[in-house]
Amino acid sequence: MLRGLVQGTRTTLAATPFLTRPLTSSAALLARSKMSQPTSTTPVKDAHPFERSQLESLLIRRFFYAPAFEIYGGVKGLYDYGPPGSSLQANIIDTWRKHFIIEEEMLELDTTIMTLSDVLKTSGHVDKFTDWMVKDSKTNEVYRADHLIEGVLEARLKGDKEARGVKELQEEEDATAKKKKKKVKSVAVKLDDKVVEEYEQILAKIDNYTGAELGQLIREHKIVAPETGNEVTQPVEFNLMFDSNIGPTGQLKGYLRPETAQGHFVNFNRLLDFNNGRVPFASAQIGRSFRNEISPRSGLLRVREFTMAEIEHFVDPLDKAHERFESVKDIKLRLLPKDVQAEGRTDISEMTIGEAVKTGMVDNSTLGYFIARIYLFLTKIGINPARLRFRQHMANEMAHYAADCWDAEIETSYGWIECVGCADRSAYDLTVHSVKTQNKLVVRQALKEPRIVERNVPAIDKKAFGPLFKKDAKAIEEAINALSEEELVKAMQQLKEQQQATVKVNGQEFQVPANVLTITPTQIKEMVREFVPNVIEPSFGIGRILYSLLEHSFWARADDVNRGVLSLPPAVAPIKCLIVPLSSNSEFKPLVAQVSQKLRSLGIASRVDDSNASIGKRYARNDELGTPFGVTLDFASVKNNTMTLRERDTTLQLIGSIDEVIQVVSELCNGSLSWTDAQSRLQPYSGSQDA
Amino acid sequence: MLRGLVQGTRTTLAATPFLTRPLTSSAALLARSKMSQPTSTTPVKDAHPFERSQLESLLIRRFFYAPAFEIYGGVKGLYDYGPPGSSLQANIIDTWRKHFIIEEEMLELDTTIMTLSDVLKTSGHVDKFTDWMVKDSKTNEVYRADHLIEGVLEARLKGDKEARGVKELQEEEDATAKKKKKKVKSVAVKLDDKVVEEYEQILAKIDNYTGAELGQLIREHKIVAPETGNEVTQPVEFNLMFDSNIGPTGQLKGYLRPETAQGHFVNFNRLLDFNNGRVPFASAQIGRSFRNEISPRSGLLRVREFTMAEIEHFVDPLDKAHERFESVKDIKLRLLPKDVQAEGRTDISEMTIGEAVKTGMVDNSTLGYFIARIYLFLTKIGINPARLRFRQHMANEMAHYAADCWDAEIETSYGWIECVGCADRSAYDLTVHSVKTQNKLVVRQALKEPRIVERNVPAIDKKAFGPLFKKDAKAIEEAINALSEEELVKAMQQLKEQQQATVKVNGQEFQVPANVLTITPTQIKEMVREFVPNVIEPSFGIGRILYSLLEHSFWARADDVNRGVLSLPPAVAPIKCLIVPLSSNSEFKPLVAQVSQKLRSLGIASRVDDSNASIGKRYARNDELGTPFGVTLDFASVKNNTMTLRERDTTLQLIGSIDEVIQVVSELCNGSLSWTDAQSRLQPYSGSQDA
Repeated sequence: MLRGLVQGTRTTLAATPFLTRPLTSSAALLARSKMSQPTSTTPVKDAHPFERSQLESLLIRRFFYAPAFEIYGGVKGLYDYGPPGSSLQANIIDTWRKHFIIEEEMLELDTTIMTLSDVLKTSGHVDKFTDWMVKDSKTNEVYRADHLIEGVLEARLKGDKEARGVKELQEEEDATAKKKKKKVKSVAVKLDDKVVEEYEQILAKIDNYTGAELGQLIREHKIVAPETGNEVTQPVEFNLMFDSNIGPTGQLKGYLRPETAQGHFVNFNRLLDFNNGRVPFASAQIGRSFRNEISPRSGLLRVREFTMAEIEHFVDPLDKAHERFESVKDIKLRLLPKDVQAEGRTDISEMTIGEAVKTGMVDNSTLGYFIARIYLFLTKIGINPARLRFRQHMANEMAHYAADCWDAEIETSYGWIECVGCADRSAYDLTVHSVKTQNKLVVRQALKEPRIVERNVPAIDKKAFGPLFKKDAKAIEEAINALSEEELVKAMQQLKEQQQATVKVNGQEFQVPANVLTITPTQIKEMVREFVPNVIEPSFGIGRILYSLLEHSFWARADDVNRGVLSLPPAVAPIKCLIVPLSSNSEFKPLVAQVSQKLRSLGIASRVDDSNASIGKRYARNDELGTPFGVTLDFASVKNNTMTLRERDTTLQLIGSIDEVIQVVSELCNGSLSWTDAQSRLQPYSGSQDA
Repeated sequence: MLRGLVQGTRTTLAATPFLTRPLTSSAALLARSKMSQPTSTTPVKDAHPFERSQLESLLIRRFFYAPAFEIYGGVKGLYDYGPPGSSLQANIIDTWRKHFIIEEEMLELDTTIMTLSDVLKTSGHVDKFTDWMVKDSKTNEVYRADHLIEGVLEARLKGDKEARGVKELQEEEDATAKKKKKKVKSVAVKLDDKVVEEYEQILAKIDNYTGAELGQLIREHKIVAPETGNEVTQPVEFNLMFDSNIGPTGQLKGYLRPETAQGHFVNFNRLLDFNNGRVPFASAQIGRSFRNEISPRSGLLRVREFTMAEIEHFVDPLDKAHERFESVKDIKLRLLPKDVQAEGRTDISEMTIGEAVKTGMVDNSTLGYFIARIYLFLTKIGINPARLRFRQHMANEMAHYAADCWDAEIETSYGWIECVGCADRSAYDLTVHSVKTQNKLVVRQALKEPRIVERNVPAIDKKAFGPLFKKDAKAIEEAINALSEEELVKAMQQLKEQQQATVKVNGQEFQVPANVLTITPTQIKEMVREFVPNVIEPSFGIGRILYSLLEHSFWARADDVNRGVLSLPPAVAPIKCLIVPLSSNSEFKPLVAQVSQKLRSLGIASRVDDSNASIGKRYARNDELGTPFGVTLDFASVKNNTMTLRERDTTLQLIGSIDEVIQVVSELCNGSLSWTDAQSRLQPYSGSQDA
């Protein structure tokens, strides 16, 4: 039945198809070559080289995030977002919701995290959503097999380079090694040229090995646990889903969803109905998903619990053109197509999405439309477009059912990170759920002109059929009427050759004799076209985008490497405006309350800092939080009703009446005014407070 | 150590203290008395009596929500929200975020759902977050023990009333019975007056029985499984948390959080630091929580996965006054204090929150402030104030550590439903986490004047101490310095009586002799006051509020009981404005696009309905979705650039220029204009389209 409906395609999932799977390794082949190393990890504004440790120390100290259950010692791969991190995340999500759900009139969903095991069995996750794991044979310390091999071989290659006196690469290698949970120590031992080549080939293909092959590599290359030197066990599969039991009986198994997508697919009929039966339409969902990683690393980039935003755009497979493609066709993108990668190169093609679709590099204009919209979203929230590329999946990375897939990759100090996947999932998911549940998940489209098709039509002799099968008759008849074309052909053959056909009902087989069942090829006039829509899926990892944005936004003032600044755009900055009274003197309180109230009524998130620190220090503290604007209330404010306005990146200050300044801040925050234009609206102010 | 720090209070959790626990039963005592039956379940506007089945059919049909994994047969207690339900929920949350987090400058958090078991062991959930369960002795069908007894005794009482010919109560009883998952059939059998009285007493106290007592009741009253008549097993405890394993080793246990609160408490030090070390401040979090209910019922009111919004307001225990209490003190509330309930009455005291705090009915003005703010929030989103009351917990309901607790209860067809809890949790949570982790979770406040206090100060003779305990010396010294006042007193006594004191280090006991350890009462000058703050916790069940709001909003047009309307306020309505072209004629397309674009740029969620249905039908469809406004584009629009505006509840129509109408819609949606005032801005339009 399964093979029938999907018409001969492989019905098992490839090992790496999940768009949203762990993915440092998906770009491993490229990230490892010298060319794909970060071209620049320092923002333009910055006089100091980027230091990840400085950023991380700021982020933890100012509670953007912190290890979850820190006072209990923490748990790897679980992080809590504090006030600035939560606000930043909420603002990114809010921008996303407006950019996609509202502007594109998508149908929002909010489905459960706890997922019935049957659903994930059908989708393939129960069987195939796994990584290979090995254990230290004595201590039972656990390693992800591919990561262990990677770490050991990279350390050996590094040792070889040291032995050969190659120095220029060392720093780069150090950066790579930081990614690893356990930094494998390198020893300066020269390797044979042939061995070096072999190791490099293994590393380039590290994602593509089966468990047996990984085991073979471990034995062949004498890879042992790095800390203890003990042998490791044979690789075993470990399913990355958290499991639990639903209800008290222990008989209803559930998993925490590894993606939100299945929640869309199982609700397809209700969504289609809500959209008056018409495609194309898109559903969207923002929510938590879970991966029980074997050994999480890379901070916020590989975690066990994370927020995703996923879109499932349902489209007629015969017409994948997007009606608003014209509006984005001239957007220029940095593309890394699969054929370039196949040649081992990583050079970027800069071209418009219009060209990319026209030349067939991008499969269809709906996929192209979303790629362009993803670009617009990411750059709107502050991702540096020069450090953003769209990389096409190569044939061996892609799920067998996918027509085309492009990842938005963002360059960080960890290398190029997949932050958004944009795949054409074809009709795979709806088909497998339909087959499993016997619920049709199809679009019915009235044909303008009826068409004649040939179908094999079963007919039963009811008079004889009922008495023959008694209580089972109804179920058998239903099963016959539900047979696929392929099954009908098989049944016809059985009837011809054996004078009876086998019909399965709930696993039980019944022999239906030819005298009660006939199957006849018949010409049928169809008024309605019935089809399973294809799905284009843009899938966003919010935490990865958030972390990449923090890296792109971080720099330090030229005069002091310890004065960190996060240049977040006002749209996503946790707090838009800081209110700084000269002191906590009660004289300023009424004005502070008034300004605070006015900003609030304009929907501008603001904070008062009336601590005893100097004004400069208070501004510096809020530069660390990414607060783009600050207003100062001093004695002149009390006397003349004026207020100064300070911009975070330039530290320039302007002055005007309190109401004028508030109006300017409001326009700056909603994006209708630029800082340059603000300078013509208010007077320059020279009394520097950034000392 | 545990007993020491919490100073003699019971450190185990009472069986029913969790604010956010399953709670139909928390109001059971009251809900069951005749007085507390819904005073009116029909909205004022409605000519038809409220029928829950009509509302439910609308909600499922229009995909506000649906059973999760419906095509797989569904799972009890798990629901997916479709487009209108998701939008309604998102709008309620957005209003909540503005009303609480933004307006009150709370610190937002986003902590993990997957929670380390140690954390929930400390909080008491691992041991005490349980319900009593029984099984049918033959079929293994599972029942919650208290629900089973309730169902059976209520059915017997109903049968008794039937036998006595009491008719007037029957309908009411039917309403109650609908709540039950399994409606227990009543048989008209007259009971002894004494038995009736006994049953009523049991029902009034059903929340307060232990497992053994529930078992006793089952045996005594011969309660059997309703479907089969089989005996049921002894009650056993079932923990309501979903459990799982973190990572691949199977040695790190985790639970899905049953509340978001613990995520606040374990991050207390970082939050305090973010707030510059000062209290009061509040943290807030919106997110999913989970309860593995034994047998969920009552639709969205008792589910296994739900969205909560929780506030933890940290306050000095010596000063629980709220600085903005003045701003809410005149708000009149419907209060049901504990002493009234203790007398078996449910009559409401209508009074201002100012009076309630002044008379001591409400413990302190911070609690009072939040009660008033909760009232403002609920009525802002559309909860009928006449069907909202604040019920104080009685002593036997409240957690032992709580100083006072008030639930916002909303009247629905299921009775009065706890939708928000507002409790003073005292210093309980911070104290137990601090004791368990040995991390101080305290506020340090500089004293204006130093104060002299007497402390027992331990001193060790280092020269003798080190050689005596060797490698353990450091750990023992640390343990001595960490002893609580109470423990120091005990140790002093031991030193005096036994010439040695027992010190525990990681479970191991050491005897420290009097010659190396002295403990001396000493007068100390303190410059800093150190205290564990108390916590006031308003905790919102978003799903319950959402469902109650739908009941309060639902009615049917007088002329047709099948024309359902949801009178949702514009602020929370899923779609604010429907755009209805006379037909799908291409003539209207440019205008439709223009109006749609203008509304979108004003941030007004709108939808176009250009289907072939009549305009009246299209409006009726959107009345079901709660869409407050609709604009119609017809030939006059093309010719004169006019547009009609229709209001959902009155079906009245106005006409004006397209831009005028858009401006009016914008003001209506942001709440700055009432419909009455809109009528003076635009002309009345008589051409009815609501046929």
